[in-house]
Amino acid sequence: MSQSRILMINPNSTDSMTDKMHDAAQGVLRAFTHLDAKTSTLGPPSIEGFADGAVAVPPLLDIIRSHPEYDGYIIGCFDDTGLDAARVITSKPVVGIGEAAMHVASMLSVVFAVVTTMREAVPVITQNLQRYGLGQRCCAVRAANIPVLDLEDPSSNAVQRISEQIQIAIEEQGAEAIVLGCAGMVDLAADLTDRFGVPVINGVVSAVAIMQALTQLGYRTSKVGGYAMQRMK
Amino acid sequence: MSQSRILMINPNSTDSMTDKMHDAAQGVLRAFTHLDAKTSTLGPPSIEGFADGAVAVPPLLDIIRSHPEYDGYIIGCFDDTGLDAARVITSKPVVGIGEAAMHVASMLSVVFAVVTTMREAVPVITQNLQRYGLGQRCCAVRAANIPVLDLEDPSSNAVQRISEQIQIAIEEQGAEAIVLGCAGMVDLAADLTDRFGVPVINGVVSAVAIMQALTQLGYRTSKVGGYAMQRMK
Amino acid sequence: MSQSRILMINPNSTDSMTDKMHDAAQGVLRAFTHLDAKTSTLGPPSIEGFADGAVAVPPLLDIIRSHPEYDGYIIGCFDDTGLDAARVITSKPVVGIGEAAMHVASMLSVVFAVVTTMREAVPVITQNLQRYGLGQRCCAVRAANIPVLDLEDPSSNAVQRISEQIQIAIEEQGAEAIVLGCAGMVDLAADLTDRFGVPVINGVVSAVAIMQALTQLGYRTSKVGGYAMQRMK
Amino acid sequence: MSQSRILMINPNSTDSMTDKMHDAAQGVLRAFTHLDAKTSTLGPPSIEGFADGAVAVPPLLDIIRSHPEYDGYIIGCFDDTGLDAARVITSKPVVGIGEAAMHVASMLSVVFAVVTTMREAVPVITQNLQRYGLGQRCCAVRAANIPVLDLEDPSSNAVQRISEQIQIAIEEQGAEAIVLGCAGMVDLAADLTDRFGVPVINGVVSAVAIMQALTQLGYRTSKVGGYAMQRMK
Amino acid sequence: MSQSRILMINPNSTDSMTDKMHDAAQGVLRAFTHLDAKTSTLGPPSIEGFADGAVAVPPLLDIIRSHPEYDGYIIGCFDDTGLDAARVITSKPVVGIGEAAMHVASMLSVVFAVVTTMREAVPVITQNLQRYGLGQRCCAVRAANIPVLDLEDPSSNAVQRISEQIQIAIEEQGAEAIVLGCAGMVDLAADLTDRFGVPVINGVVSAVAIMQALTQLGYRTSKVGGYAMQRMK
Amino acid sequence: MSQSRILMINPNSTDSMTDKMHDAAQGVLRAFTHLDAKTSTLGPPSIEGFADGAVAVPPLLDIIRSHPEYDGYIIGCFDDTGLDAARVITSKPVVGIGEAAMHVASMLSVVFAVVTTMREAVPVITQNLQRYGLGQRCCAVRAANIPVLDLEDPSSNAVQRISEQIQIAIEEQGAEAIVLGCAGMVDLAADLTDRFGVPVINGVVSAVAIMQALTQLGYRTSKVGGYAMQRMK
Repeated sequence: MSQSRILMINPNSTDSMTDKMHDAAQGVLRAFTHLDAKTSTLGPPSIEGFADGAVAVPPLLDIIRSHPEYDGYIIGCFDDTGLDAARVITSKPVVGIGEAAMHVASMLSVVFAVVTTMREAVPVITQNLQRYGLGQRCCAVRAANIPVLDLEDPSSNAVQRISEQIQIAIEEQGAEAIVLGCAGMVDLAADLTDRFGVPVINGVVSAVAIMQALTQLGYRTSKVGGYAMQRMK
Repeated sequence: MSQSRILMINPNSTDSMTDKMHDAAQGVLRAFTHLDAKTSTLGPPSIEGFADGAVAVPPLLDIIRSHPEYDGYIIGCFDDTGLDAARVITSKPVVGIGEAAMHVASMLSVVFAVVTTMREAVPVITQNLQRYGLGQRCCAVRAANIPVLDLEDPSSNAVQRISEQIQIAIEEQGAEAIVLGCAGMVDLAADLTDRFGVPVINGVVSAVAIMQALTQLGYRTSKVGGYAMQRMK
Repeated sequence: MSQSRILMINPNSTDSMTDKMHDAAQGVLRAFTHLDAKTSTLGPPSIEGFADGAVAVPPLLDIIRSHPEYDGYIIGCFDDTGLDAARVITSKPVVGIGEAAMHVASMLSVVFAVVTTMREAVPVITQNLQRYGLGQRCCAVRAANIPVLDLEDPSSNAVQRISEQIQIAIEEQGAEAIVLGCAGMVDLAADLTDRFGVPVINGVVSAVAIMQALTQLGYRTSKVGGYAMQRMK
Repeated sequence: MSQSRILMINPNSTDSMTDKMHDAAQGVLRAFTHLDAKTSTLGPPSIEGFADGAVAVPPLLDIIRSHPEYDGYIIGCFDDTGLDAARVITSKPVVGIGEAAMHVASMLSVVFAVVTTMREAVPVITQNLQRYGLGQRCCAVRAANIPVLDLEDPSSNAVQRISEQIQIAIEEQGAEAIVLGCAGMVDLAADLTDRFGVPVINGVVSAVAIMQALTQLGYRTSKVGGYAMQRMK
Repeated sequence: MSQSRILMINPNSTDSMTDKMHDAAQGVLRAFTHLDAKTSTLGPPSIEGFADGAVAVPPLLDIIRSHPEYDGYIIGCFDDTGLDAARVITSKPVVGIGEAAMHVASMLSVVFAVVTTMREAVPVITQNLQRYGLGQRCCAVRAANIPVLDLEDPSSNAVQRISEQIQIAIEEQGAEAIVLGCAGMVDLAADLTDRFGVPVINGVVSAVAIMQALTQLGYRTSKVGGYAMQRMK
Repeated sequence: MSQSRILMINPNSTDSMTDKMHDAAQGVLRAFTHLDAKTSTLGPPSIEGFADGAVAVPPLLDIIRSHPEYDGYIIGCFDDTGLDAARVITSKPVVGIGEAAMHVASMLSVVFAVVTTMREAVPVITQNLQRYGLGQRCCAVRAANIPVLDLEDPSSNAVQRISEQIQIAIEEQGAEAIVLGCAGMVDLAADLTDRFGVPVINGVVSAVAIMQALTQLGYRTSKVGGYAMQRMK
C-alpha cells in the first residue's frame, strides 16, 4: 500500500493551535499516512467571523498551491475557511474540520448540536450547515460565550461553560451527539464524551480520518462545474 | 435633504468594467446622491468562480476600510464577493449587485430565473440564493456558455446565446422575470426587456437604487451577531 | 428627473392610522416624489387575521383600479393584504410594508425577528415569510400580546411588552435585527433602535424607500405567469 | 348515526359548474350525508389567478356566515379560494377541493403531479402546495394551456392536451398519481385513470369524502391562533 | 351502496391494545363499513423506536397478503410501521394512524404539535413528518416521558404529564391543535380536547374515517414508481 | 495500532453479489483492518423497493446481533436497508453503502447525481437523501431502466444505458459527480470515471473507507434518543 501525504493547514497564524491540532491528529494516523501541519503565517491570529475568514483565505490558497506534493489538504479551522476556493485550485481532495465533524456526527446520531465559542461564530457555522445540507440534522448551534484564547487558559471556566451548553442541547433540544465547534476545543472531546455519554466529536481527528479515507479511495475533486480549475488571476 | 455618498467597488481589476457600471448607474442617481466607483486594482482581472472570488475579498475590504467617508458601499460583482465580510468591517449598509437584483426581481414576479455566463459561475450564484433565502423564488440559474470577455466583443454571439437561455427559462421553466447574472451584461437589460416582455433586471442599477433607499432610511448594519465589528487581525 | 407619484393605501378604514403612516413617510420622501395616502373606507376598521384580510382586498383593488395615475402602490398593512392580487391588476410596481421591512432587514442582518401584536397575527406573517422565501432568515415571529388599539393608548404598557419580546428575540433566539410587525408600531422604531442597539425596522418608511427605488428603476410587474393581467369579472 | 349536512360553495358565479360539481359529488355521498351546493352569485364568473380569487372571497364568506346550519363547508374551487379566511369565521370544518385532492394523492403515491388549465393558474397552486407542506410530494404543476371554458366545449381538444401533460408528468418527471387541477376537469378523472393506469384524482369527490370523514370525527377547526374567531368588521 | 371491509392491524402482539383501538373505532364506523382488527401475534409486544418497528413489518405484511378480501388496511401504530412496504404489496389503499392524524390536524389548524410517550419515539415521528411533507406544519414533537405501559395504568400520572406537554406546546410553541402520538393515548382525546379547547386528534378514529373516505372514492394505490407491485422474494 | 474487524452484510441472499462486494473492498483495506462479508441467507434474492427492503431487515439485524465481535458493520445495499434499526441494536458504528457514497460525493463536488437501476428504486433513494439531509446536494436520481440481474449479464447493454443517464445528469442537470446507485454497479466505477472525467462513486469502497475512519476514531453510535438501545421483543 502506497503512502499518502496529507497537509493540514491552520489558516490562522497561531503556531500553538497548529501544534495542538498536529498532536491531536497523531491518534488517528494510519501506518502509511504522513501528515504535516503548517501555520498560515500571513493569516490572522485567530478567525472569528466572516471578515477574519475572508482575509485568511488567500494565504491559505498560496500554501496549497506551493505544496502540490501532498495527496490531500485539511483546512484546520472549524469554519472551513476557504473550502470551496481550495477545491478549485487543486484536484486533490480537500476537507475542512467542521465539515468532517458534521458528516461524522450525522452517521452516529439522528440529530446533533454544535457548541462553539462566541455568538459571532454562529452564523458562519449555520451557513456552512445549510450549504452542506446537514442543517436539518443539526438541532442547534450554541455559543458558550468563551473567547477563543480562554480555551488556552486553564484557570478559565471554559469547560464549565461548554458543559452547560452541551447539557441544554441534549436535554432540551434533542441533541444526540455534540460537535465541538472550534479547533481549540479538540482536547476536550474525550472527557466530555465520558461526562455526557454521547459522542462528542472532535473535528481535527474526524478530518484526518476522513481524509485518509478519501486518499485511499483515490477520488479527486470534480473539475466540472463549481470546482473547475480556473486560472488564478 | 442631506447628501448621501455611495462607493461602488468593482472587486476585479478591469477598469473598463468599472466604467461600464459607473455609466449604467447614472440613470438612477437621485439629486442628492454622490456616487463614486473604484476599481480594486489588486483584485483579479475577472471573477469566475470560488477561487477568484476568494482572492478578490481582502483588497475589497481594504478599499472599504480606507474610505470611511462614504454612507454606503456597493459590491460591483454579481457574485456579491465578500458581502458578509464587508458587513463586518463597517456599520454602513453594504449591498451586492446580485443580491439587489434578486430582491428586486422577487418584488416584480412570483418566480424569476438568473441567466449567467459560464457553468462554473452557477454554484456561486445558487449558494447565494440559498443563503439569502430567495432560492425558492428562483426556478433556474442558467449558463449561456459565454466567457465574460466575449460580452465586450460586439462580434460575438453573446446576445443570441443569452436570449436563447432567457427563452427557455420563460417558456419551459416558468420564469416570469430574468435577472442578468453578470455585471458585464448590464447594458443588455433594456433591449432584452423589450424583446421578451418581462422584467429583465440589471443588478447595477438595482443596487444603486436599493442603496439610495437604505442610506435614506438611515439604517445601519447590525453589530450584534454575525456582523459584529471584529478587530481585523 | 421626472416626478414619481406613489399611492399608499391603508386597507383598513381607520383614518388615524393612515395619517400616522403618511406622517412617518415624510421622513424618507425624495425631492421628486409625490406621495398620497388614502384610507380604504370600505375596509374593516383594523386587520387582524385571515378573515379581516380577505374582506379588505376588494375595496383595496378598487382604489388601485380607480387611480391609474400613480406610478406605484404601497399596501399599508404589515400583512401585505392583497399584495399578489394587486400585482395582477396593474403593471406598476406594488409593495407591501411587511415585505419591504423583511427585505430591508435581510440586507442589514444575517437573522432577524418580527415582533407583532397578537398571537392571531403570527400565522399570516409566517405564511408571508415562507412565500417570499425569507422565512429562513427569520428566527422568530413573536407576539407581544397587545391589541392594535392599545398601541394608540399612551397609558398602555405596549412599549414595555414589545421591548420584552425584542429582548428575548435578541438574547435567546439569535435575532440581529427586529422588524416591527404592525403599521401601528412605526413611531416606536427610532427609540427602540437606540434602546437595543440593533436595527429596528419600520415597514412604512421601508416601503416608501423601496418604492422610490422601484419607480426610479422604471421596472414594472411581470405580466407573464402569476401576475398576468386578467379581466376582472 | 346522526345526519351530517355539508354545504359545497362554488365561489364563482357559473351555475353550470356548480351543477357539475353537485352531480359529481353524488357518487360518494353516504347514507346520512345531506349535501347542498350553492353558487356564489356575487363571485366572478370564473377564477383564474390571484385577483379573481381575491374578489371571490367576501361573497363566499357571506354565504358561510348566513348558513350556520351546516356541519361543514367545501370550497368548490381548485385554488381553495378563501380557505384560511373561511376557517376563521366558523368553527365547523372547512375543506377546499384542491387541498383534499392533494392530501388524498399523497396517501396513494410517493410523488404526484398537478395538471391544470393555464400557466396563470400555476403560481396559486404552487403557493398552496407550499403552504400545506405538500409541495415536496408534488414533482410538477403543469399547465395544459386550456382556457377553463374550453373544458365545457366537446369540440375542443382539451382532453388531448391534458393527456399530453399527464404523460410527460408520469414518464419524465416521476409522477405516480395525477391531481386534476381544476373543478371543470372532474368528469375526466375516471377515463384518465383507465387510460394511464395511475390514480387520477378528482378534487370534488375527494373533498366530499374528506369532509364526511371530518364531520364524522366531530372535530372542529381550532380557535386558538391563526383561525381564532375574530369579529368581522 | 356497497359495503367496504377494512382491516386494522395492530403490528404489535398486545391484544389489549388491539381491543382498545377496535373499541375506539366503533364511534366513527359508517353503516356500510365492516371493520376487523387483528393483532400481529408475531410482532413485538410494543413498538418503541426503529428496531422494534423493523421487526414488526414482515409479520404485518404477511397478514395483509393473507387477507386480500379487505378493501383497505389500517396500520394501527402511530409510527406508521411498514406503511410504504404495505403499499407495495397491495393495490388497496393503506393508511397509518399517525399519517391520518397528521393530515386531519393540518386541515383543522395552521400549526399542530405531536405529544408522544418517550424521547426515543421522537425521531421516528419526525422522520415521518418530513417524509409526508407535513413537518413544516408541526411546531414540535414532544415526549411526555411515559413508558407505553404506564398508559394502561390508572395509578400512573400519565395524563398529568401529557397535559403538561400539551400546555407547553400551545402556550410556548404556537401549537393550535395536538396530535396524540401513541395508539395507547386514544382514549384521552375527548377529555383533553375539553380541557385545552383545541382539537386533540386521535389517530385511530382519524385513520378509520380517512380509510372510509378512500374506499368510498374507489381510489387505489399507484402501481407506478415507488409502490409498483414487486414479487416478494 | 490495534486491528479493526469490520463485517459487511449483504442483506440479500445472492452470494455472488456478496463476493463482488468483498472483492471490491480489497482495494481499500488498511493493513490492520480485517473485513468479513456475509450473505443474509434469509433475505430476499434482491432488494428492489420498499417491500423487499422491509423483509430484509430482521435477518440482517439477527446477523449483527449474533456477531458482536466486530468493531463496525456495513450494510451492503445501496438502499441502506435497515440502517436506523441496526444503529439501535449495537453501539458500534454502522454505515450503509448508499449513505457513504453520498457523503463522499458531497465532499468532492458541489452537486452530484445518483444513477440507479429501475424507476421503482428511485423513491427509496430519494427518501434516504432527504433523511440524511443531502437531498439538496443531489440534482437528480435517474433510473437507467436496467433490472439488477442484467448488470451481471455481459451481453446486456447495461453500461450503455447507465452511460446515457450519466451524460444527461452531467450535461443537462448540473451534476459534477455521479454516485452509482446499486451495489451491482461497483465494478463499473473506474471505467466510468475515465470516460466522463468526473468522480464516479462506488458505494462499497466508500463505505469500507468511511468505516475504517469511524473505527479508527473510536466513536460509537449515540445511545441517547433515536438510537437508544431498546430491548428487542
